[in-house]
Parts: sequence; structure tokens; C-alpha cells
Amino acid sequence: MKIELICTGSELLAGKVNTNAAYVGSRLSEIGVDLSLITAIGDKKQDLLQGFKRAFERSDIVISTGGLGPTFDDITIETVAEYLGLEIYSDRKTLKTIREYFLKYRGLSSIPDINKKQANVIKGAKILRNCFGTAPGQMLRFKDCKKKVRKTLFLLPGPPREMKPVFEENIVPFLKNYSLSVKKNKTIRVFGLAESVVEEMIKPVMEEAEFCDSKSVDFGILATESVIDVKFSVSGADERSVDEKMNKLKRGFRSILKDNILGYDKDTLASVVGRLLLSGKKTVSFAESCTGGMIAAAITAVPGSSAYFKNSVVSYSNGSKMKLLKVKKGTLKTFGAVSAETAEEMAKGVLKLSGSDYAFSTTGIAGPDGGTKAYPLGLVYIGFADKNKTESFKFNFVGTRKDIRKKTVNTALDLLRRILIGKNLKNKINLTLKKTKPRFILKTK
Amino acid sequence: MKIELICTGSELLAGKVNTNAAYVGSRLSEIGVDLSLITAIGDKKQDLLQGFKRAFERSDIVISTGGLGPTFDDITIETVAEYLGLEIYSDRKTLKTIREYFLKYRGLSSIPDINKKQANVIKGAKILRNCFGTAPGQMLRFKDCKKKVRKTLFLLPGPPREMKPVFEENIVPFLKNYSLSVKKNKTIRVFGLAESVVEEMIKPVMEEAEFCDSKSVDFGILATESVIDVKFSVSGADERSVDEKMNKLKRGFRSILKDNILGYDKDTLASVVGRLLLSGKKTVSFAESCTGGMIAAAITAVPGSSAYFKNSVVSYSNGSKMKLLKVKKGTLKTFGAVSAETAEEMAKGVLKLSGSDYAFSTTGIAGPDGGTKAYPLGLVYIGFADKNKTESFKFNFVGTRKDIRKKTVNTALDLLRRILIGKNLKNKINLTLKKTKPRFILKTK
Repeated sequence: MKIELICTGSELLAGKVNTNAAYVGSRLSEIGVDLSLITAIGDKKQDLLQGFKRAFERSDIVISTGGLGPTFDDITIETVAEYLGLEIYSDRKTLKTIREYFLKYRGLSSIPDINKKQANVIKGAKILRNCFGTAPGQMLRFKDCKKKVRKTLFLLPGPPREMKPVFEENIVPFLKNYSLSVKKNKTIRVFGLAESVVEEMIKPVMEEAEFCDSKSVDFGILATESVIDVKFSVSGADERSVDEKMNKLKRGFRSILKDNILGYDKDTLASVVGRLLLSGKKTVSFAESCTGGMIAAAITAVPGSSAYFKNSVVSYSNGSKMKLLKVKKGTLKTFGAVSAETAEEMAKGVLKLSGSDYAFSTTGIAGPDGGTKAYPLGLVYIGFADKNKTESFKFNFVGTRKDIRKKTVNTALDLLRRILIGKNLKNKINLTLKKTKPRFILKTK
Repeated sequence: MKIELICTGSELLAGKVNTNAAYVGSRLSEIGVDLSLITAIGDKKQDLLQGFKRAFERSDIVISTGGLGPTFDDITIETVAEYLGLEIYSDRKTLKTIREYFLKYRGLSSIPDINKKQANVIKGAKILRNCFGTAPGQMLRFKDCKKKVRKTLFLLPGPPREMKPVFEENIVPFLKNYSLSVKKNKTIRVFGLAESVVEEMIKPVMEEAEFCDSKSVDFGILATESVIDVKFSVSGADERSVDEKMNKLKRGFRSILKDNILGYDKDTLASVVGRLLLSGKKTVSFAESCTGGMIAAAITAVPGSSAYFKNSVVSYSNGSKMKLLKVKKGTLKTFGAVSAETAEEMAKGVLKLSGSDYAFSTTGIAGPDGGTKAYPLGLVYIGFADKNKTESFKFNFVGTRKDIRKKTVNTALDLLRRILIGKNLKNKINLTLKKTKPRFILKTK
């Protein structure tokens, strides 16, 4: 069974982010159904006609969003009707609903002329109630004239707050019934290894799974801000067999990726670190220079973070490093603001100031300017302090100002994560520091 | 001339937002070229083959993003070569570039086996340099076998930070040559008014423009985190007539929206505030509770912000509010952490601590839990202090934890912007405060 999505609207071709496509894709994936294609088409009749034609050739179920509005460029209904050779009629019940809508929300006693066409329904279509707008959705089942195959078409309104409820109330139950097999997805989130290294490492597990059962497993790898997502899905006849296969794969990946796994599915570095701090009853504070508050912002994005995060200092100048964090003038003079020594004194300073169990600091060259041979763009020191020791780690990050800052945030949070799961960073990082070009990748032996 | 975009990656079918499509669509629209279609296709060879086949049937220029990575599911090159019946070779110069990349950024003396395939180039393709990753782009011109029409194909890497420069350096100049008419876009960015209020206000200007010349002007309104973007585009035969119409529209909107205009196009509240601080030689500091470092992060996202931003304190606990910011114990006890009094003492505290010209503070209930009748979810106080006065503003924001935090950040930055352009906030905010339900919208008379 092939399902595809058509999103209509010229704005989608001119830079508007297609959030409907992301929503539909993500929800279908959650119920174990795969979209095979997404097309964004402008409000031109010929393009739309062609779009629906190709879609019906390829797919059994076509979901379309948009083009049900009142204005001249909303032409989905008439285009589909024309393509299928079906008539359109003005539905009385829908007209009544639209009239009530305008009375209730706009205080109008009659429907504006322009909106009357929103009661147009394709003959044979089932009307899908829309509680948040004037145009209802429509569902149409028909036999493909050439291949005599049964096709299903869903027409949904374009505005997300109207589209989502119509989708949830109609398409989700429909597809759940349709779907004979069970499908589950899992994401393993990895930090500290390059994408290509992760793939090399997990290849044997993937190959074995595919060798045994190539049709029911599917793999993907995705890197975002140095977090590598290993995604896999398993489908099968029943819940139990799918769970079994899922767990086997998960065990396989875990035995290889080990501590580099930061979490699963919707876990983030900040949420995982938060859970670990909470369960260990520990607190953390930050002294941020190049990340300018981003670590604190990430930590406090997690609800309940006040339990383990008390305060943080953003020290963007030498003056504030000295005044607030008690970094020594001599240190700044001798080694510079971007140095291991300054990073360590910053961490020590904020540890004392906040009385937290752990403290991290960041100082670096985030760019876009400011890079020299001695202080290249992307050079970042992350300092760490607890009551027993103070240390620092050197990194050379690549990318834009935004990338460098984001990678620094993630790396600091990952260092904290590794400490909280009881890893001795020093050994690992020393390995890294011995290279001429330090890497941000921490390899686990 | 028809242009279409193919974005490959199974993640795009399973819920990942297609930001590449939005970027390409928006940039092409800026240079006066329209995309006719966008397709998102998974990493399956048959689907990709079909996708490229249909694209070449329909369009003269096909732009593709993604599928140039090192992993098994990156199959764009081999699929296109197979479809066109062209050979692939391993390009020596590209191999050399990849080798240098791994040496410089990963400290590796040789290319990992898996990455070698990223030097694969389709015979006859022009190599498009990629300075931010390992896979170069490729451009291929060929004659369609059936119709004998010349077709152009661009293959771009998928990660946005790699895709964008390759796109800008190659596709933009290529298409500028192609485009016959001039089209220009402008965005007016507004803060402090609701979307529907903005629409009502600007209606006369839009209607007049459309009445005179409906085909060459286009309008749109978009709200993101309380920033309202009024977008308009003008097309015409030559630069001068387009500029004239643009300026007339801009003047029309400005005369209505006045100080609520925060800036234009790529301006952000943080970049505008930064420019104003810089030109006035003023500095600012922040004491953040509910925004947890987000204001500092926004300010420091702007290159050169060290000139006007020295430091900031994130005080997420009562203890740190007292210790770092000298908020009085009695104030916290009598009025609570989320109060006008605490907000003002926080702002005063960080002003003194940092010696800046202006200071702002935030304290509020960001949720998701913690709302009571007296302290409802979304209740936020923003404090302000300079050497002359201390004051505070009360807001009731709506939305998720993320929304409330983001709206607080934007509102604080907008308050600073209004101070920097010489507006007296007190009068305006008093008007707002007299309402039973304080609004975050500041209305200018």
C-alpha cells in the first residue's frame, strides 16, 4: 500500500516552511505507516492536475492539504472533480455549518458570497467535519479507470489548526484499520563519534538484520549539530514479534555504541543530563563566554530544571571574568582569554560562586572574525571543576558562528553526561589532546 | 523555463521539517524565479529513479539536495548516473580535498574508506566546490533523449550549512542570467501588535496597491513568536520602476506602523538592539530567571556583541537572586520570586554588578506546571534599571513553556529597543497595566 501527500499553495514554493508535511509525516510514522512521497504544488490548475494524475498512478492513498479556502487561488475541489470526471454540488448541511460559523465567530447574519464555494462537495465524497474553520475535509473512494484498483483520496484544509483535527479524526483511524502489520520506530541518539564512524561501527548489526529479514527492517543515519541519530524501524505481523526484533537490534547497537549513546527518541543532551543530575541529587553551574548563555538556556528549557540548576554567569568581557569569576589578571595577560588556564579559572570561579557540585566553563573563538594562526576560528576550551579537581579540554570546531556555539553547548553537556555516568574523561581527552589537531570526537575504547 | 526541486532523505517523509526547500524557494523568489514543484523522496532507488524521471519530463532545471553523504542510504549520484546512462569516476582533485578536510578537521592522515565514495563524480559534470563538508556539488547539462531539449541538473549536499554556500555560489548566478523580469521582496518586521491588528491597519495600503496594479504586487503576513512579518513583493520590467513601487509601499506601511517596526528583512530584535547600542555607545546586562540565559544567548548570537554586552547572570533560584543580585530576603518573602519588586531588585542588582548603562531582568512562570490563580502560567515580570530609574512591566503570555520564554525574550529586547529610540515606556505600559488582563502587546497611539 503506497501513500503520498500533496501540499498545495504557491507560498510553499516561495519559502514558506511546510509544517503540514512534517506533521503528517511524523504522525504517520508514529502509527507505523510510511509516506512514499511528498509533493508541494502551486495554485495553478495545470500543475495540480498533473500532480494528482501522477499521484493516483503511483499510490493507493493520496492525502492532500490546502486549496479549500474561499479565494480565487483555492482550486483543489474543482481540479480533482475535473480530473475524475465527477460533479460538484453545494452541500446544504455544510452551508448551514458555515452560516453558524460566521454568526458565532464573526457576528455575521449571512455567509459572505466569497465563502459560499466552501460548501462545494465532490459527488460521492464523504464530508469530514472541520470544527476550526469553514471548509470541511472530504474523503473519496473510487476505482482507478485503467487498472481497476481502488484508490482513496483525502482532501484536508491547509491551515494547520484546521488540518490537524480533521487528520486525527479521520485519517489516523482509517489507516490504523488498513495497516495489517505492526510497525515501530526507534532512534538511538549518539554523541562523540562522527557520522561515518558510527556507520562503520554499526554495519555488522545492520547487515545481519538485513540478511535475516530485509523487508521488515529499515535503517537511517542522521547528523544534527554533532548528534548522530541511528534510526531504525521494524514491521511485522504482531506486536510481540516486532518488539522482539526491536529489542534484539537495540541490544546489538548498544553493545557497540556503548557510552556514546546519549539517549533514545525524544531525549536531548539537556534532558538526559537533567535526569542524571536529579537522580544523583547533584547540581551544576556554568560560566559561559563564547556560548553566551546558550548552555543555561538549554538546561532551563527542560521543565523542573530548577532542582539541579541554580545559576550561571555569562562573562563576555575580561572585566567580568575577573570581577564575577575571579579569573586572575595575570592569567588573562599571560595566556589570553581563550586558553586552558582561563577556562579552568572560570569553572573554579563559578563553582565557588554558586556552590554547585559541578561547574563548566566555555571560552573560544566563535567568529565570524577573530581567527588568527594561534587562535583559529573554532578554537574552544571547555573548563570543568568539582570539589576534587579542575581540568580543561581543547577543541577545534568547524562551521559558522552558530555551529561552533551549538557544538560547544552539546560538547559541554556531553562531558557532563559522561561524568555523571561515571566515566573518567581525563584519559580519553588526553588521547585526543596528544594529537596536533585536537578533535571534538571522544572515542571510547 | 520550469525549475523544480527534489529533496531526498527518508527523514523528510517521516516528520523532519524540510528547511532546505524553504531556503531554496525563498532565495529563488528573491531573485525573481519561481519554483514550479517541490518533491521530497525517500532514500529508495526506485522512488528516486521515478522522481528524477518525472522531473526531467516536466522541467528544464532540476535542483536536488541530499543523498551525497558517505553512508549506504546516500544514493543520489549512482541513481542519476544510472538513469542518464552515464559513468561515474573517482575524481582525484576531490579526493585530495577530502583528504585535506579529514587531516585538518579530524586529525586523520587518510580518508576513512566509507568517505571515499564522496569523490564520485558523474562523467561530464562540473564540480561545485563545498567548503563546509566533504561532498562537492555537481552540475550537469545534457540533452533530453526524447525531446532534444537541453536540461540542467544541480546536485547539492543535504546539510543546510553545506547546501547554502554551494547554492549561492553556483545556482544564484546561473539563474540570474536566465531571469527576464525584475522581482524584489521586502519584509517589514513588526513587534508589539497582534497579527490581526496589523492586517486591519495595513489593509488600505494593500488595497490601494492591488487596485492600481494587482498583477505586479503580492502581500503576505506571517507571525512568529510575536514578531509579525509584513511581506511584499513587486515585479516589473526594470529595476527603477520596481524600486519606485517598493519605496511607495514601504512609505505607506511606515506611516501606519511607525515605531512598531523593529526592522526590515533579516533584522532581528537582537541585531537591531545591537546596532542601536553600538551607535549610542551604550552597554546592557541581564538578570535572567524564567528566560534562563536566552536573552544573553540572543544578544551574543550577533557578531561583535562584545562591544555592548559585558555580562549577564542567570539566577534560577532564590539563593542566587540574593547572593549574586542582592535581592532582599524580605522582598522574596513578602512579594515572592515572581513579582514586580523582585524583578526591579534583580535589574538593579545586575546593573550595579556589571556597571552597564541599562539592565533588564526576567522572572515568571514558564510552566508547564506551577500555575495558580495568583500566579497563573505565563505571568512574567520584566524589570528595567538605569542610573536614573528602576521600573517593571507585567505580562500574561500565552502558550507552551517554549512560547512563554521566547515571548519574554522578544518583549525584553523590544522594550530595550523602544528605550534606545527614545520612547517613554512608562506611559504606554501603564495603559496596558490598567486592564484586568495585562497584554503583552504594547499599543502605540
